[in-house]
Amino acid sequence: MIFTGLLTPGSHRAAELADDRAVARAILRVEDAWVAAQSLSGLVAPDAARAAHAAAESVALDEAALNDLAVAAEGGGNPVIPLLAAYRAAVIGENGAPISAVHASLTSQDVMDTALALVMRDVRSSILAHLARTGDALARIVAEHRDTVMVGRTLTQHALPISFGLKAASWLAAVDDAVDAVLAARLPVSYGGASGSLAATMARCSDGATSEQTFGRVTDLLGHWADELGLELPNGVWHTDRVPVLRVASGYAQTTAALARMANDVLMMSRPEVGELREPTAEGRGVSSAMPQKQNPVLSVLLKRTGIAAPGLLSQVFAGASAADDERPDGGWHAEWAALRELAVLATAASSHAAELAGGLTVDTERMAQNLERAGTGVMAERLSAALAPVLSEREGKNAKQRVQAAVRAEPWDADALASALAREIAAEEDPTLPGGMSVGDPQSVTRWVRSLLDPRGYLGASGELCDRAVARHEERTTA
Amino acid sequence: MIFTGLLTPGSHRAAELADDRAVARAILRVEDAWVAAQSLSGLVAPDAARAAHAAAESVALDEAALNDLAVAAEGGGNPVIPLLAAYRAAVIGENGAPISAVHASLTSQDVMDTALALVMRDVRSSILAHLARTGDALARIVAEHRDTVMVGRTLTQHALPISFGLKAASWLAAVDDAVDAVLAARLPVSYGGASGSLAATMARCSDGATSEQTFGRVTDLLGHWADELGLELPNGVWHTDRVPVLRVASGYAQTTAALARMANDVLMMSRPEVGELREPTAEGRGVSSAMPQKQNPVLSVLLKRTGIAAPGLLSQVFAGASAADDERPDGGWHAEWAALRELAVLATAASSHAAELAGGLTVDTERMAQNLERAGTGVMAERLSAALAPVLSEREGKNAKQRVQAAVRAEPWDADALASALAREIAAEEDPTLPGGMSVGDPQSVTRWVRSLLDPRGYLGASGELCDRAVARHEERTTA
Amino acid sequence: MIFTGLLTPGSHRAAELADDRAVARAILRVEDAWVAAQSLSGLVAPDAARAAHAAAESVALDEAALNDLAVAAEGGGNPVIPLLAAYRAAVIGENGAPISAVHASLTSQDVMDTALALVMRDVRSSILAHLARTGDALARIVAEHRDTVMVGRTLTQHALPISFGLKAASWLAAVDDAVDAVLAARLPVSYGGASGSLAATMARCSDGATSEQTFGRVTDLLGHWADELGLELPNGVWHTDRVPVLRVASGYAQTTAALARMANDVLMMSRPEVGELREPTAEGRGVSSAMPQKQNPVLSVLLKRTGIAAPGLLSQVFAGASAADDERPDGGWHAEWAALRELAVLATAASSHAAELAGGLTVDTERMAQNLERAGTGVMAERLSAALAPVLSEREGKNAKQRVQAAVRAEPWDADALASALAREIAAEEDPTLPGGMSVGDPQSVTRWVRSLLDPRGYLGASGELCDRAVARHEERTTA
Amino acid sequence: MIFTGLLTPGSHRAAELADDRAVARAILRVEDAWVAAQSLSGLVAPDAARAAHAAAESVALDEAALNDLAVAAEGGGNPVIPLLAAYRAAVIGENGAPISAVHASLTSQDVMDTALALVMRDVRSSILAHLARTGDALARIVAEHRDTVMVGRTLTQHALPISFGLKAASWLAAVDDAVDAVLAARLPVSYGGASGSLAATMARCSDGATSEQTFGRVTDLLGHWADELGLELPNGVWHTDRVPVLRVASGYAQTTAALARMANDVLMMSRPEVGELREPTAEGRGVSSAMPQKQNPVLSVLLKRTGIAAPGLLSQVFAGASAADDERPDGGWHAEWAALRELAVLATAASSHAAELAGGLTVDTERMAQNLERAGTGVMAERLSAALAPVLSEREGKNAKQRVQAAVRAEPWDADALASALAREIAAEEDPTLPGGMSVGDPQSVTRWVRSLLDPRGYLGASGELCDRAVARHEERTTA
Repeated sequence: MIFTGLLTPGSHRAAELADDRAVARAILRVEDAWVAAQSLSGLVAPDAARAAHAAAESVALDEAALNDLAVAAEGGGNPVIPLLAAYRAAVIGENGAPISAVHASLTSQDVMDTALALVMRDVRSSILAHLARTGDALARIVAEHRDTVMVGRTLTQHALPISFGLKAASWLAAVDDAVDAVLAARLPVSYGGASGSLAATMARCSDGATSEQTFGRVTDLLGHWADELGLELPNGVWHTDRVPVLRVASGYAQTTAALARMANDVLMMSRPEVGELREPTAEGRGVSSAMPQKQNPVLSVLLKRTGIAAPGLLSQVFAGASAADDERPDGGWHAEWAALRELAVLATAASSHAAELAGGLTVDTERMAQNLERAGTGVMAERLSAALAPVLSEREGKNAKQRVQAAVRAEPWDADALASALAREIAAEEDPTLPGGMSVGDPQSVTRWVRSLLDPRGYLGASGELCDRAVARHEERTTA
Repeated sequence: MIFTGLLTPGSHRAAELADDRAVARAILRVEDAWVAAQSLSGLVAPDAARAAHAAAESVALDEAALNDLAVAAEGGGNPVIPLLAAYRAAVIGENGAPISAVHASLTSQDVMDTALALVMRDVRSSILAHLARTGDALARIVAEHRDTVMVGRTLTQHALPISFGLKAASWLAAVDDAVDAVLAARLPVSYGGASGSLAATMARCSDGATSEQTFGRVTDLLGHWADELGLELPNGVWHTDRVPVLRVASGYAQTTAALARMANDVLMMSRPEVGELREPTAEGRGVSSAMPQKQNPVLSVLLKRTGIAAPGLLSQVFAGASAADDERPDGGWHAEWAALRELAVLATAASSHAAELAGGLTVDTERMAQNLERAGTGVMAERLSAALAPVLSEREGKNAKQRVQAAVRAEPWDADALASALAREIAAEEDPTLPGGMSVGDPQSVTRWVRSLLDPRGYLGASGELCDRAVARHEERTTA
Repeated sequence: MIFTGLLTPGSHRAAELADDRAVARAILRVEDAWVAAQSLSGLVAPDAARAAHAAAESVALDEAALNDLAVAAEGGGNPVIPLLAAYRAAVIGENGAPISAVHASLTSQDVMDTALALVMRDVRSSILAHLARTGDALARIVAEHRDTVMVGRTLTQHALPISFGLKAASWLAAVDDAVDAVLAARLPVSYGGASGSLAATMARCSDGATSEQTFGRVTDLLGHWADELGLELPNGVWHTDRVPVLRVASGYAQTTAALARMANDVLMMSRPEVGELREPTAEGRGVSSAMPQKQNPVLSVLLKRTGIAAPGLLSQVFAGASAADDERPDGGWHAEWAALRELAVLATAASSHAAELAGGLTVDTERMAQNLERAGTGVMAERLSAALAPVLSEREGKNAKQRVQAAVRAEPWDADALASALAREIAAEEDPTLPGGMSVGDPQSVTRWVRSLLDPRGYLGASGELCDRAVARHEERTTA
Repeated sequence: MIFTGLLTPGSHRAAELADDRAVARAILRVEDAWVAAQSLSGLVAPDAARAAHAAAESVALDEAALNDLAVAAEGGGNPVIPLLAAYRAAVIGENGAPISAVHASLTSQDVMDTALALVMRDVRSSILAHLARTGDALARIVAEHRDTVMVGRTLTQHALPISFGLKAASWLAAVDDAVDAVLAARLPVSYGGASGSLAATMARCSDGATSEQTFGRVTDLLGHWADELGLELPNGVWHTDRVPVLRVASGYAQTTAALARMANDVLMMSRPEVGELREPTAEGRGVSSAMPQKQNPVLSVLLKRTGIAAPGLLSQVFAGASAADDERPDGGWHAEWAALRELAVLATAASSHAAELAGGLTVDTERMAQNLERAGTGVMAERLSAALAPVLSEREGKNAKQRVQAAVRAEPWDADALASALAREIAAEEDPTLPGGMSVGDPQSVTRWVRSLLDPRGYLGASGELCDRAVARHEERTTA
């Protein structure tokens, strides 16, 4: 049985972190660290820990071994049980005798959950690194294009001018928010033993102490384990309380949502008819052998794909958590692993793709300017209406705004003609309230003024300031 | 990058049908069959087709090769492009020269969609075989337990008696419906070429003919291709119209829903406190080394898992279809593959697990009888109320039904005492309407009659007939 | 508590069919029909049935009453119980006495399921009518634009020329497939009584008959009920076997997927930079008061919205079915209603919106031609490569295809210049294989030939035939 | 068009906070506060703000008005546009003239998003209050049942003894985590104007100032607005960056997951065969008229329902966010509202139901003890194995653990017999290592010792300490 990611292009970018070998290795690291923690707590001799450690490295995890494990995982419903058997055999090989501390007092769910937390920690580092690169690249774009004009689009139609930096600032903010969401997820070890009461561990640590004292020893032991693995100590037993998993999954899905949206924009803006952006090219990427003119925006396509796929996977993880019952669940838990891992793989691939995309994006500022110009005078109508409201009186049942709109409809493409027409209307007003120093008696200056209102560069609002703020926010977190 | 199904126990049951090697092999079969079809249409010489066929079998699909393909799939966004390159190289190896008919006029989506249809066809055969075994086993259970009484449960609480056969008949009906749903999905080849117009194929087949004649030739060519592969001809180009995929996915999800429900029942009924059913055991399955008394119902756990996981995957497939656009989609299509395949894997594993579960289920009829008895007299209250409605008059503001309920509440556990109590109430009626031949003057016969109403065996309704019907429906389809 | 659809614009199009009043009315119709069926079976007198019928029409279903019902629905977990109480009170009002046949032997799930089937039947009629209008309008578009050239787009980039009819034919095929999917869903009455055994009904119909005879009578009674309601008789009890619901939901989701895809195309093609399509306008639709130039494609926006929303709702319905257990489920059933109804509302709104969109779509064929022209010579490269493969020899390590590609890259915009350049390359060949009657000695005719290969009108492939076939398929079903 | 929550029993508990009237009222509050903020910024006179405020309260929001709004919402794709028209008319009614400050510079999305944030704030307060009550009740249960023994169950089967407090502590931890998740979601105002650049607002506030100064004034204005509404200022424009919505939705879904899990346990434990828990009863809740013995656990059924429904709704919200594009989205945004609100309604209902459930749960400690006793000696096997490992030598190929298991299998029900049997085996050992002071020569003391190991009360592990910790954590947050 071989799944190599053939149907999830880009998933190899997460291969070493999250494939089945990584999961199996994490299981062994967890078992190994458990013996080490017992050694630190004085429950087992240091040389036993060394033998257990050596054995963990010696268990075969080649394709054949992993396939056997996958088949055997069916027996108990999870892969810990058969892998533990292999590990025990290796320990005997190392030690000449079984080490009773191996897996002592643990249940398979303790190990599985902790191993997945370990995998998620490695994935998280990778995602955060990719997101940092993405954010840095976007911050550069925002700064560079703080004042690059383009036409803003809402519900697919031309609205007002904006700066391209403003759009990129919105992408950047989402990336920085995704970083927060990924960081917010805690990654704890999982413990509880067969029924979540830590009974076996307590018994082993008791040795005549009070229950409270024993619990202190157990907490120390668990602390050693968590330290060995670089994971946190949880609030309690989470065999059926899947909050840690829900948070991790939400963080991943927020990441793919943020990046898919950027991709949606890139896809649209790199359509030939729009032509404002172009993906970075790379050897063998996006080319079509039959159509030499064609350069497919594959990074964005794969990012958009990820945004479509992740919500269903997220719902799987939440469905699993909602179905949990008893002291350890009868299916809800099992439904969670594959979806969680696939989310991790998609988020890793997506953040990696996004870093590449943001780092190599070609911005065609001329085309942006051209599209804005072609958008016509309508994109300035809001501004005109506001500016001329105090100037134009109500005429023939039309107020100032409606008169401006009529004028814009009459001259949708020619800004000069529109300026002249409106200047004529102003001239026909009795004593209109014109801006400082301007007089109806000077029609040329009025026309110039109206024409100046039609310059989109003068109507970018807070685009610049919003760009500055997004960049500053990004830089703060980088230096922090 | 290795995914072996470690996190989806049971998925090895679909390995040969649907793993990455199976997908890659299907892609090669599709390309091979395309040359063969051209040969049948006279567009290419038979020995070229033979060379192409030999080459298809020679392309390496070992782990390393598949991993390389998976990595390379990122370039064009799908695995067809790199695998085609490997195939072309193999053809040259066979033939000493490139065969221009390889992939001629096709687009990668034609091949990918057709290859997935081919995989789905193999999966379908497997699922149908498993479901047939499941249905046959259930039909035997239904027949055997047509009259086995147990307590019916609704919203977790005891309701009326039923036969266990009736419950199994409901499982059986769902399995037979799942068969229908799986069968209803058509599996067509996919064609259209680069833009869905079949332009290149039409050009190749034209040779001076009219457009209509040429289309006839193209249709013949496509027909040969479909025949070679054992697939259907579709209504048209389905590059962006994902109906075939939606139907396949719905059929799988209906299958997992049907089987998960059966598992929910088995899980509850095999709880120690209920103890009415027991899963078949097998070497290494469900045992706990620490707890010798424990036998986990692993088959049912994995089935329940599948039912929790499938809805999110189904939503992914529909989300992909809903996002399709242009002549070939920019991400919606790509979001579909992994989810569809995972659904196929889960449905295969689930149907295989279900066949094993149904085939080896242990039914503890004594425990069923015992639980029913312990359920008390309440489960017969509906019957009593109906039977005594014409007998008991309204007294102290209580109608017949309320009087029966009060009596039941007073004697919830002792059927004899309840019968006596009610017989006394009947005796106190003036001239009650008793069933044929019974007289108030004979209190013993009245008591016996009331006691007989409390026998759950007499209140199974149409349990038997509904069992017969479900079995007959199943057998009809088997013999058809 | 008031939900009017404020957050689901367009949902009022399904209001009378599927709002809470429609659901409540359906519940009453179901109860009414049950008494009528009993009357037809001789279990109750005709005038009782008449009184029950009159009472069903008299139950108040104004906002206040519905709100009270909604609050009271919490007590038993479903709205049947409180509405039944109101109905019983109304029956007494009509009749002066309770009619014992009301709800006799039914469980609330029998009524709820049957009422939802009734609502779904009305919704289905509406959806089918809207889809028929949509299909008819699309068939006209396909026929009209069978030969209207436009540029085909794949993965957002220009690919080959197609006809606009071909694109519309793909929309049409999806609509016709959606009709099939909606029609494929059976809508049965639901029966079973308290535990799914029909025990109470069997007891009422028995009267000394054999069980088999009694079952015959019960089947007749159920048949009368189904006939009264215009619903089907199911294979068996479906309290926990939710196949009928899964099929209905799948049909709706397939409908929204089909229509969302059309909307995706319309949204892109009505972007100002593309400008090939324009939604129908209507009073107050899509206008922006501040931006007179702006006409938002609101129908398509709402359709796209539906495509995004439906997959999650579908997953809810399947999750509910997968969680079913016992003889009547403890939550899975309850999770199904709201999602199923929302799907019904969305599918109704979507099909209605689509009919309006398809019926009033403005096609700008000039803009299509212009965009195709601006796409440059690259869109004809596939054709050129195929046509010149036998003409151009390998030169300087480049085969014919690579030479064509180089030529296209050198002249991406000017077809005349490209034709001349390629004609010069042909002239330099030694004895090239030219099409019938053409000679290298006549460079003008060669240039004309190459230039003719660059005419997109000559490379539409089977666009026309595929249009004809889609229209024919649609018409067949219309006349059938 | 009327939706009253008939199909979502319990939704009336969120009615005043989140129904369509609440949404419409929030829209008016947002518009009103915007005029107030302008007044505070000196852009408009205080009496205009007073008139605008009075008008906001006078707009009709009865059923008819809401229905009209819902119908009209289709025109622009959202309900703000028609409600704004009604508001403007009311302002004229108040003021005798239009107030130009109404909605000045805002886009409908600014208002819609802010209004939804306002609704979510009210919902949040309600959910937090319900969760606090739930948590308090659970903390009492945990404390009370810190040492109440019951049998722990894993994968449906009996495992080890636990205390019921430990199980409740796990519920409590999930509730407290849900509180954190709900609190973690920020609720900001939304601004940006037509294209997200704040252009119109900047123009209004400019008055000759530098862009930076103007942005300062705009920020003050937005700050006043946020203060008026009790919302936060966001990092930037979130028209297309839906992070705030994703966080809110994740918090709700985490809440329903936590509570559904508790319900799953209650449902199982209140099955008659288990009988350890009983839901609080209430007038009209869970009763069955036909079956007097039946008390359906309706609160838990509705909670489980919520857990099944929420994941699909969450996926809808994420799908909407992932589909966002342009400066304001063309469908992704619209897909979000209904799902977000439904999640809010479900989370409110669920937390309210949970508070009632936890506050009135009946715990049958005798039944718990009985079920534990009936579980037999197997549940103590883990302890026995560990305790006797140093005592029993390897015999006939069986190590100590295997010998214990064999003994347990031989005496699965009788602890005394098992103790005697094991004591006999110990007596047969040569010089076994017995605990302090015990001698093989005193068989009775050995039997007593082994018998004491079979007392589940002595093997609760850290149940008590974990209970204490969960309660302490809950109390800390309550007093904080």
